[in-house]
Amino acid sequence: MISLDDIRAAAQRIAPHIRHTPVIELTAVPDPVTEAQLFLKLENLQCTGSFKARGATNKLLSQPPGAVSKGIVTASGGNHGLAVARAARSAGVPATVYVTESATEEKREKLRRSGAEVKVLGKIWNEANEAALEQAERTGAAYFHPFADPMVVAGQGTVALEFLDAVPNLDTVIVAIGGGGLISGMSVALKALNPAIRIIGIEPEGSPTLKASLDAGRVVRLESVTSKVATMSCGETDPGVFALVRDNVDEIVLISDAEMEDAAAWLWFELGIAADLSGASAIAALRSGKISLPADARAGALVCGAGLDGVAL
Amino acid sequence: MISLDDIRAAAQRIAPHIRHTPVIELTAVPDPVTEAQLFLKLENLQCTGSFKARGATNKLLSQPPGAVSKGIVTASGGNHGLAVARAARSAGVPATVYVTESATEEKREKLRRSGAEVKVLGKIWNEANEAALEQAERTGAAYFHPFADPMVVAGQGTVALEFLDAVPNLDTVIVAIGGGGLISGMSVALKALNPAIRIIGIEPEGSPTLKASLDAGRVVRLESVTSKVATMSCGETDPGVFALVRDNVDEIVLISDAEMEDAAAWLWFELGIAADLSGASAIAALRSGKISLPADARAGALVCGAGLDGVAL
Repeated sequence: MISLDDIRAAAQRIAPHIRHTPVIELTAVPDPVTEAQLFLKLENLQCTGSFKARGATNKLLSQPPGAVSKGIVTASGGNHGLAVARAARSAGVPATVYVTESATEEKREKLRRSGAEVKVLGKIWNEANEAALEQAERTGAAYFHPFADPMVVAGQGTVALEFLDAVPNLDTVIVAIGGGGLISGMSVALKALNPAIRIIGIEPEGSPTLKASLDAGRVVRLESVTSKVATMSCGETDPGVFALVRDNVDEIVLISDAEMEDAAAWLWFELGIAADLSGASAIAALRSGKISLPADARAGALVCGAGLDGVAL
Repeated sequence: MISLDDIRAAAQRIAPHIRHTPVIELTAVPDPVTEAQLFLKLENLQCTGSFKARGATNKLLSQPPGAVSKGIVTASGGNHGLAVARAARSAGVPATVYVTESATEEKREKLRRSGAEVKVLGKIWNEANEAALEQAERTGAAYFHPFADPMVVAGQGTVALEFLDAVPNLDTVIVAIGGGGLISGMSVALKALNPAIRIIGIEPEGSPTLKASLDAGRVVRLESVTSKVATMSCGETDPGVFALVRDNVDEIVLISDAEMEDAAAWLWFELGIAADLSGASAIAALRSGKISLPADARAGALVCGAGLDGVAL
């Protein structure tokens, strides 16, 4: 689907338009989540509040002239939608974002404030996506898939280049999975630059999209999605993404929604980081003991999205 | 009151116990607050959610043996109280924090969760502080002043060393003022290392504590405090802090509470940073045009505290 060169090209293409996010080492917490060194890359501070700005920007900048003149349409758990809204605004065209009923009101409101038209449809992502595809077909708008697109996957992969740049000897990387665009893109870069690196994906117990496909040896559609985490509930991945995950990702760990809620509250209380539930998933997997790291490990995790899920008001 | 050496000693003393916070450059925003380069040091990601952990930790670690055995008491707009609660917990002794009626429920709840006993008293900080002093006298608990203390000022000053380390050629630094402990400590380090650096303090229009004292040429007590920003409303500074500010700070800018609210909302929407109102004050001063920077300036501002003031739910 993509190679390290595609990711390097994407990094150059999008550099003037996205933010170089900081990496912090997790120190001085009363109850550390691991004995290993743990570095957090704060993609919650990325433009639009998540890494999705990378993929959407790379997709926009690689369109042929005029391709988005009738607007851009997508379906998204929220974060990709925000990134598409920003891309559309920068191109001066309208954006329409289909979200599922599980998208939080917070994300819907942020989409509207970003200038997107928000349409709510269905319980899982596939249903919203069919409507988005239909609208693109009918109106001539460009359709930006949230993950099954080489330009989007290459864009998301750029976060791995920055992470290794900041912490060159990372030996483990923990990444949340929705459709798989982020982890597949990152895994191409990480394994190309360090074949020994251990890559761990995280999925909700109620939406094990890639785990189910890996177990079956092929892409499967989940019969039901019971996680409430919209950004991690796509229902079915893409064959290209699946192949990259199968070849590059070492293991997939399942965690509960409650573990993510607990981790998001911990991130806010201990670190002042306002993350969404997917952004807290790596911490959740560590805090729940579902990932254990050797004491001499140097692990990296993405805080992939901003949100108020850990904030009690 | 203190010198660069005191700040360097503090930095060494507290290093194992506090967090080295990241600096981000403000890029890729649709409506930049300045044409200059602007770097934000994210002390909202510091332990306890603000720079105050630096001063309280330095104070604790420089106590004589046994000095805190009967607990620690303080009066605080919230952030110093959280830092004292953490210091007390690390020493295994109880903390009592007096807050004014203007302290947000969010800060009060976080204080309780940090193990502190919270007492609410008075409208401005001086009133709460008199009660704190009285309790310390009566019970033999140690009293940690939020700013009028060389060890606290030296601890806060350490943030300037880190900032210059991350961005060596800063030419302007913008800092919020409550009692003046942060800006006085930082200014000692900044002017010692670069006498040409421009230091700008920010105060609320409704609580111009240092501005009024500088205008009078001596410490004055404000007749009334009308700002609702508790962390920037102390009513009266300290002579030692006053002298450092008079000698080192180039100008003080006054902004409204509404400008801080607007800036906090902007930080959350554009950067995913959940700041309190004081944490948003430097951005407020830039966005409102009350500070203008030459296009070739390299300015630094602190996001000094975490909070939910910019978050609409």
